[in-house]
Amino acid sequence: MPLKNTCIVSGAQTKFGKLDGVTLREMFTEAVDKATVGAGIDKKDIQAAFIGTFIPEMLIHQGHTAPLLLDYAGLKGLPATRHEAACASGATALRAAIMAIESGFYDTVLVAGAEKMTSVSTNRVTEALAAAADDEFESSLGLTFPGVFAIAAVAHMEKYGTTEEDMARVAVKAHDNASTNPLAQFQKPVSLEKAMTPRYVAWPLKLFDCSPISDGAAAMVLTSTEKAKEYTDLPIKVVGTGQASASMNLSDRGELTSFEATVSAGRRAYDMAGLGPKDMDFAVVHDCFTIAEIIASEDLGFFEPGQGAAAVKDGITARDGDKPINPMGGLKAVGHPVGATGVKQAVVVYKELMGDAGPNQVDKNETGIVHNFGGTGATCVVNIMRRADA
Amino acid sequence: MPLKNTCIVSGAQTKFGKLDGVTLREMFTEAVDKATVGAGIDKKDIQAAFIGTFIPEMLIHQGHTAPLLLDYAGLKGLPATRHEAACASGATALRAAIMAIESGFYDTVLVAGAEKMTSVSTNRVTEALAAAADDEFESSLGLTFPGVFAIAAVAHMEKYGTTEEDMARVAVKAHDNASTNPLAQFQKPVSLEKAMTPRYVAWPLKLFDCSPISDGAAAMVLTSTEKAKEYTDLPIKVVGTGQASASMNLSDRGELTSFEATVSAGRRAYDMAGLGPKDMDFAVVHDCFTIAEIIASEDLGFFEPGQGAAAVKDGITARDGDKPINPMGGLKAVGHPVGATGVKQAVVVYKELMGDAGPNQVDKNETGIVHNFGGTGATCVVNIMRRADA
Repeated sequence: MPLKNTCIVSGAQTKFGKLDGVTLREMFTEAVDKATVGAGIDKKDIQAAFIGTFIPEMLIHQGHTAPLLLDYAGLKGLPATRHEAACASGATALRAAIMAIESGFYDTVLVAGAEKMTSVSTNRVTEALAAAADDEFESSLGLTFPGVFAIAAVAHMEKYGTTEEDMARVAVKAHDNASTNPLAQFQKPVSLEKAMTPRYVAWPLKLFDCSPISDGAAAMVLTSTEKAKEYTDLPIKVVGTGQASASMNLSDRGELTSFEATVSAGRRAYDMAGLGPKDMDFAVVHDCFTIAEIIASEDLGFFEPGQGAAAVKDGITARDGDKPINPMGGLKAVGHPVGATGVKQAVVVYKELMGDAGPNQVDKNETGIVHNFGGTGATCVVNIMRRADA
Repeated sequence: MPLKNTCIVSGAQTKFGKLDGVTLREMFTEAVDKATVGAGIDKKDIQAAFIGTFIPEMLIHQGHTAPLLLDYAGLKGLPATRHEAACASGATALRAAIMAIESGFYDTVLVAGAEKMTSVSTNRVTEALAAAADDEFESSLGLTFPGVFAIAAVAHMEKYGTTEEDMARVAVKAHDNASTNPLAQFQKPVSLEKAMTPRYVAWPLKLFDCSPISDGAAAMVLTSTEKAKEYTDLPIKVVGTGQASASMNLSDRGELTSFEATVSAGRRAYDMAGLGPKDMDFAVVHDCFTIAEIIASEDLGFFEPGQGAAAVKDGITARDGDKPINPMGGLKAVGHPVGATGVKQAVVVYKELMGDAGPNQVDKNETGIVHNFGGTGATCVVNIMRRADA
């Protein structure tokens, strides 16, 4: 089925980083305010809300976040649901919102995500994040996420000759892009030499291969094509969406150098849009670790399997390259407040398509793709967005 | 908008109770097997899954439950999302599935819910459940759910003269109905005298006013009207659905003897169905505490405010009364594995409408309504279902 009816008319994020003294509800409200009143959209127009949070239960002893956050953001009473799919929580909320609009249930809805991660110890955060893996077969045995992605990295190195330096280049690019993004957690360029500093988190992944622990929120307003005219002359259309899952347990996968849920979700999104990898002017992919960006760029069909690292080295994925990836800095340098990430990624695509990305603007911006995954790719959502005039 | 396209073609639950040695994934799989192959539905027909779990993060250190559970149930790879809204998690999953079918995204989907609660201490369960309240203003100050509903009970007693005996009668009815339900946690009738035993949990709520801590899972298959013909001669149609939220923090409510989200969600569901309270042949309502059933029966318009207790006393809500409520035993006596509850409640409506409720069958069974709420009614979902031949 083709998508006919869903447009994005606003998108915003808070600063990502260690936001001392700012609570989950406060950062959520800031993002919602920016995406509604800050964008000239009356909160009264919002009919329902789709909210992504990953693990506030373990981080701040708070479940049932949808009505709580909605109340604080001045939207009390609306139908509001919380969606959780580990690091893909935000994109599953976005996808539910797309279905809600396509079904005719609502015209105008809020999609938002948030996570407050820095108010507890790093050990506690690591334990909380590990709940995104299979507790019976992985996390209870001590396998946490840097370890999981280290396994994927080793497999990629073994099969394709990818090197630690190749991965470090992804970090250099991320920090370079984030250096001009005022909402990024890290705004300093990093040299290849520095990114190669041997501070191993889980060999072969070093400190600069890992996205940070962050606080932050993001929000956007979606509406029907008909209603979009009331808000903007140039709505951004959602033209394709795909979701897939895979086994949680890495040992049940046939392949460690590719994530089958990305391949499958990408194929579904391309099919729905009637477009292919070559039609994507730029991409926002889930770079929780540098190796994840390399693998995603292959799984989404931009490069042949094993060619992702060379594409980074050759500058193809740089902001001024032929296929810019994560032009505003990605999870790696902008930060990764888990529940916010999938929404923030879509906001980046929205801003680039609108030509509103400032110094981080890509040249070709008619069509963008966004890839968000959870756990070790056990959930993946891919969305394709396009300028209405494209 | 009227609903046109969503039918229920199967529904099942596991035994609820303290299921020693049975894991979350095992009980989930049992429910899914019963609702698919057990109902003559090929698992290959399922295109997506919508899953309710409340707080496995704190109970079994497991987030990201959708792909995990799907894999174990033999449905690996499908788009699968976890929905969380405290005790309304199951109904928010169901509602997302309704939107998915109405949107044309899918023909046939699985809705399932599960919770494993008895593998940790009662104190830990209480702490986990408290995450459904506002941590800044309620749970961190010691207000847990028996206390929250005790406040509502006291307000109802003060305003309407409702008595402890009135509430105890709800428990007696629940245990009576559950005594013939082989999947119920408690299958023994309870006398009014026993229900009045002064074992106070939080005055005026006594042991028999409170639903138990339970393990369990439930599942159902929804499909489009067109596809439903392939499975059954008598599909059950979803004719109305409504959802609303309210402030989490009880101190922000104007009224403690009525839950505004129930009133609002009910009104939306009635409007969509073009039906009213009088058209409901029977009801399944969220009786986490006995007072909650009384209030829900008023908020859904079956009885005037303050008349809910008299209706129980007069036998109107008994299985053979004019407006049977919770004819299979409710959360109170069947059990309350939180993420499963909203799905199980819909399964009860399905079974009653199909005439498959055995000794728990209600006489009039053309139209049923189901009410599921989360926290102190901060999230509420109401669905109305009807026999296709009605």
